[in-house]
Amino acid sequence: MSELPAHVTIREVALRDGLQIEAPIPLSAKLDLLAAIAATGVREVEATAFVSPTKVPALADAPELAARLSDYPDIEFSALVASPNGAKRAIAAGLRSLEYVVSAADGHSRANVGRSSAEATEQIAEIVAIAHPCEVTVEVIIATAWDCPFDGPTPPQRVLDIVDAACDYGADRLAIADTIGTTTPGRVTALVHQVRPRIGDLPLGAHFHNTRGAGLASAYAAVAAGVTRLDSSVGGLGGCPFAPGASGNIATEDLAYLLRDSGIDTGVDLTAAIAAARVARDAVGHELPSALLRAGDRILS
Amino acid sequence: MSELPAHVTIREVALRDGLQIEAPIPLSAKLDLLAAIAATGVREVEATAFVSPTKVPALADAPELAARLSDYPDIEFSALVASPNGAKRAIAAGLRSLEYVVSAADGHSRANVGRSSAEATEQIAEIVAIAHPCEVTVEVIIATAWDCPFDGPTPPQRVLDIVDAACDYGADRLAIADTIGTTTPGRVTALVHQVRPRIGDLPLGAHFHNTRGAGLASAYAAVAAGVTRLDSSVGGLGGCPFAPGASGNIATEDLAYLLRDSGIDTGVDLTAAIAAARVARDAVGHELPSALLRAGDRILS
Repeated sequence: MSELPAHVTIREVALRDGLQIEAPIPLSAKLDLLAAIAATGVREVEATAFVSPTKVPALADAPELAARLSDYPDIEFSALVASPNGAKRAIAAGLRSLEYVVSAADGHSRANVGRSSAEATEQIAEIVAIAHPCEVTVEVIIATAWDCPFDGPTPPQRVLDIVDAACDYGADRLAIADTIGTTTPGRVTALVHQVRPRIGDLPLGAHFHNTRGAGLASAYAAVAAGVTRLDSSVGGLGGCPFAPGASGNIATEDLAYLLRDSGIDTGVDLTAAIAAARVARDAVGHELPSALLRAGDRILS
Repeated sequence: MSELPAHVTIREVALRDGLQIEAPIPLSAKLDLLAAIAATGVREVEATAFVSPTKVPALADAPELAARLSDYPDIEFSALVASPNGAKRAIAAGLRSLEYVVSAADGHSRANVGRSSAEATEQIAEIVAIAHPCEVTVEVIIATAWDCPFDGPTPPQRVLDIVDAACDYGADRLAIADTIGTTTPGRVTALVHQVRPRIGDLPLGAHFHNTRGAGLASAYAAVAAGVTRLDSSVGGLGGCPFAPGASGNIATEDLAYLLRDSGIDTGVDLTAAIAAARVARDAVGHELPSALLRAGDRILS
């Protein structure tokens, strides 16, 4: 294992990945959640997605939410897009940071966006050509980086080919995502060790779901192997469409606890993160899988 | 990190640590759970504890349960004891493997067994002197090995002193336990690296709770650092008296999934472990925190 970094950037994704498969909640509830998230000290927030409002009704208010983000000038907000049209809409709404998702597996790519992985990869160039002239950054997120619910295990070479293309096309950041929550630390270490040396100085992130309980173990392995950016959601908000009732994203407060205990600074205040998890729980009206939401921080008398 | 071992022994602790703080369930329900556990292929099972039935009413039927263990001749059953008297009772009931717990922290030791850590350590000799003439083995489990709810972080030297004493007194196995579920992978690696070289050929186990979400991450770190035995419970049964509603033991099925995916054999069948988790859930009548109980195994079509 490598040395652990002194700092890891947590990107809070409750507002997008967390809410995506929930029943739509009012904009006012999202703004309350955003205020609670901002109070955690997190400096990057995935705010929404500019995708089909028919396919993702929970995020249909993306432009309205985007109009309120200027209330938080210290936070870098990003939005997920799945097409050049989405990128244009996000930029028009004021976003300065885009996430473009490419599935490494054809099965997931076709199910998710109706085109092959290669076609989605080609579109990186188009997205960058839209974003960069507007001084907007593009992060390429490689979905199903380890496993696909349709195609099975993803050959690492498919991921590396997308990594190389993303670099060639001018992506500003890269991330690898365990979309269905099946990977484990050893496979994470192996893939990060393959990706990290190919991307020069580009920041490398990772995105884990806790669907099979190994989310934090995978996150720790990723950080030990060279990842410096992790996505998480307060409360662990965010289910998996392929596993109803299963745990969602790794919980911000659980991740921040683990990293703090490992001597890694995240800038996230645990008490505020637990409070934000409560706001998320109340917003969606059901229990969330976060461990710290139940157990609290380590209070030693 | 060291090389990963080819095999890790999982000890199933649902019947003792899992049920300990639950409302008592009938012996027949325990026998159903035991049958489901036996079907997982696990070869070591913590069956019960011979402690005060007043303090732990859920395990008051220890002698009756012990009388039924001979139905499973292929499983090594162990029982937890907290005193020489408990050791004698366990042996009289037919147990061939004892676990004796010593808290490394005085605060927890006094709260749990009414004596200091040093006094509990001294008693290892007495337990061994009772057990070995009967050809019964003694595992010393060092509780609060990382943190104590009363005394705060445990100085590693306290653990090492107990380790040395346990070796001197003839313990057959050692384990370190994160009794309140606060440790994280870096601290696990550090402690295992200190303990492992001191104990020669004695098997070293570890016991984690998932109270703050890092249980599997800690378990993986332990295995990578030289631990070859892990405790877990089907369903993640087992709360923490210091964190009501919090997650309990790491779940057997989640652990077996992670280890299988890491190329480590455990002998545990995932489908059978998930089925046993369902039996555990039905036995206690409430949801359990296991991830695989919700998400299932990685089924890739």
